[in-house]
Amino acid sequence: MQDATRFWSKGLQELAPYVPGEQPQGGGWIKLNTNENPYPPSPAAIAAMHEALGSRMPMYPDPNCSDFRKAVAEREGLDVGQVFAGNGSDEVLYFAFLAFFRRGGELVFPDLTYSFYPVYARATGVPFRTVRLDDEFRIPMDEMVSTESGVIFPNPNAPTTVKVPLDAVEAVLRRNPDSVVVVDEAYVDFGADTATPLIGEHPNLLVVQTLSKSRSLAGLRVGWAMGDRGLIDALERVRDSINSYTVDRVAQFGAAAAIRDEAYFRETCAKVVATRERFAAGLERLGFSLPPSSANFVFAAHPTLSAAELLAALREHKILIRAFRGPRLERHARISIGTDEEMDAVLEALEHL
Amino acid sequence: MQDATRFWSKGLQELAPYVPGEQPQGGGWIKLNTNENPYPPSPAAIAAMHEALGSRMPMYPDPNCSDFRKAVAEREGLDVGQVFAGNGSDEVLYFAFLAFFRRGGELVFPDLTYSFYPVYARATGVPFRTVRLDDEFRIPMDEMVSTESGVIFPNPNAPTTVKVPLDAVEAVLRRNPDSVVVVDEAYVDFGADTATPLIGEHPNLLVVQTLSKSRSLAGLRVGWAMGDRGLIDALERVRDSINSYTVDRVAQFGAAAAIRDEAYFRETCAKVVATRERFAAGLERLGFSLPPSSANFVFAAHPTLSAAELLAALREHKILIRAFRGPRLERHARISIGTDEEMDAVLEALEHL
Repeated sequence: MQDATRFWSKGLQELAPYVPGEQPQGGGWIKLNTNENPYPPSPAAIAAMHEALGSRMPMYPDPNCSDFRKAVAEREGLDVGQVFAGNGSDEVLYFAFLAFFRRGGELVFPDLTYSFYPVYARATGVPFRTVRLDDEFRIPMDEMVSTESGVIFPNPNAPTTVKVPLDAVEAVLRRNPDSVVVVDEAYVDFGADTATPLIGEHPNLLVVQTLSKSRSLAGLRVGWAMGDRGLIDALERVRDSINSYTVDRVAQFGAAAAIRDEAYFRETCAKVVATRERFAAGLERLGFSLPPSSANFVFAAHPTLSAAELLAALREHKILIRAFRGPRLERHARISIGTDEEMDAVLEALEHL
Repeated sequence: MQDATRFWSKGLQELAPYVPGEQPQGGGWIKLNTNENPYPPSPAAIAAMHEALGSRMPMYPDPNCSDFRKAVAEREGLDVGQVFAGNGSDEVLYFAFLAFFRRGGELVFPDLTYSFYPVYARATGVPFRTVRLDDEFRIPMDEMVSTESGVIFPNPNAPTTVKVPLDAVEAVLRRNPDSVVVVDEAYVDFGADTATPLIGEHPNLLVVQTLSKSRSLAGLRVGWAMGDRGLIDALERVRDSINSYTVDRVAQFGAAAAIRDEAYFRETCAKVVATRERFAAGLERLGFSLPPSSANFVFAAHPTLSAAELLAALREHKILIRAFRGPRLERHARISIGTDEEMDAVLEALEHL
């Protein structure tokens, strides 16, 4: 019996794939490990998806995701041609790495950030360097400079929860006129300011958002990018060299309806933010230290336990949280914000550790 | 105003993206240009998708697509670990290019075949050479040899509709013991023999199938690969370096139910095949020449008109077919098989050209 790795492409064995958070398929868990929204999606989105199933399922979906892009464009005051839709923001980010960052220079991103960035960089052959967050987990924005590749950071940053003020985002755009700056706004709706209003003035800005967090639709896999038409063109060229139809018919219907239900979206975000503030105060009372969160999760250090120890202890209570490995990540656990009842149960469990 | 292409990665301007067939969003067309199935999906699949919408949509879907893979494995007599699921067979094929064909040598495929293969090859940096179909559009299987990269072909071939006998597939597997041979079986259920039974004996075989054709679910975007566990491992590594969850919750539910509704699947395929045989006979009566089809489409040459002229003429009747450019593709149009009524309308229109 020969080893099947003899068939593998060069570099495949050296890849270090991203490890997503556990998705227990059974019930009974308080699941606070993958930053999902505890509230259901907009009823209008669910209704639209039921409707989508009623016809045309044997046909390929609209490859251009026109109606969903129209919904986004109308919400943001953009043209449809300034919006690109993909199979989750992860796919959109991968396409952006292929489209913009393989230019010879070094991509720049924070040292503590979304752990998929170095994975994408290795998968796409993009050299990179990281800049060190300060002791309060802030990104030193004046060091985010790349003349020949690009810059990427989440706002707010993850897993560290700290937001970047919009004037600092704009300064980075000015400082990198010849490189694309990707602002990954997966969590922006929970307390940071979107860079979308800067698109008209900055042709090097690409803003990436997702339905997975603030629209409660992680199960659907829809993300999108907004930017100058020339950047969107590049993403379309990449997509059409890989998979022409990455967003299915049901997802397109649900996504468009979710974007249009602004009232439901605002209400859900406000509930998550209120719970986060209450939970963060509870953690501080228990002696945790945590940076101010603008996300739907907190990044919190127990007074004595490491993040891995805290994870193990909460697992005993059927509470799932996330711990990361690596320098400066050992003490802080990432805890997603669930319902008030769920977070009360966490505080209760923590009190008795 | 500067040109946005200054931000593009190297090679992006040289990409020649795949051009999918037109998807008219209005009604009134007889749409025979993208090989969709004229019959609706299994009612059990639709019911399962409605059910999927009832809960857990805020959660990420099962990254491993376990239930769908179980359904496939049970149908084919394989282990779940021998099945990989993706966002359409196009995504699965792209992952296969990344996983297996970037090894230094030349990938081999037919000169007239699925036009996405050279697109993938350019997008992934895989050198390739093509082998010339004979005058009856058969693949010269003894020339399908690659010692250092891989081999890929559809069975039946597209757009040419001719199938490859299973003993010839097996001979290619034996002739390429050190390269992965991908058999792209998008259309296999309409008249060719699947290579799946050869998987146990041939660790270099990867069989790729899709729900888009024989299961009437092009709108859903689900495809899958079957092969040795070591090949499936490689595809998982690639996926987890790009996008951990490419198949959404609704699609996973619908896909599993579609695979399990074997009776509906057989009935639908039989109807399409019966219509194809009747339509092909009608074309021959009108003087068309066409190779024997094992697919849900025909590849037919009008006695006098080029494929582009035929397309234009049928478009006047609100009938969409597909014409390709390039040597040896000018005369034959690709016409998907619709319902009996639709194909009668095509024959009627053709009689009066």
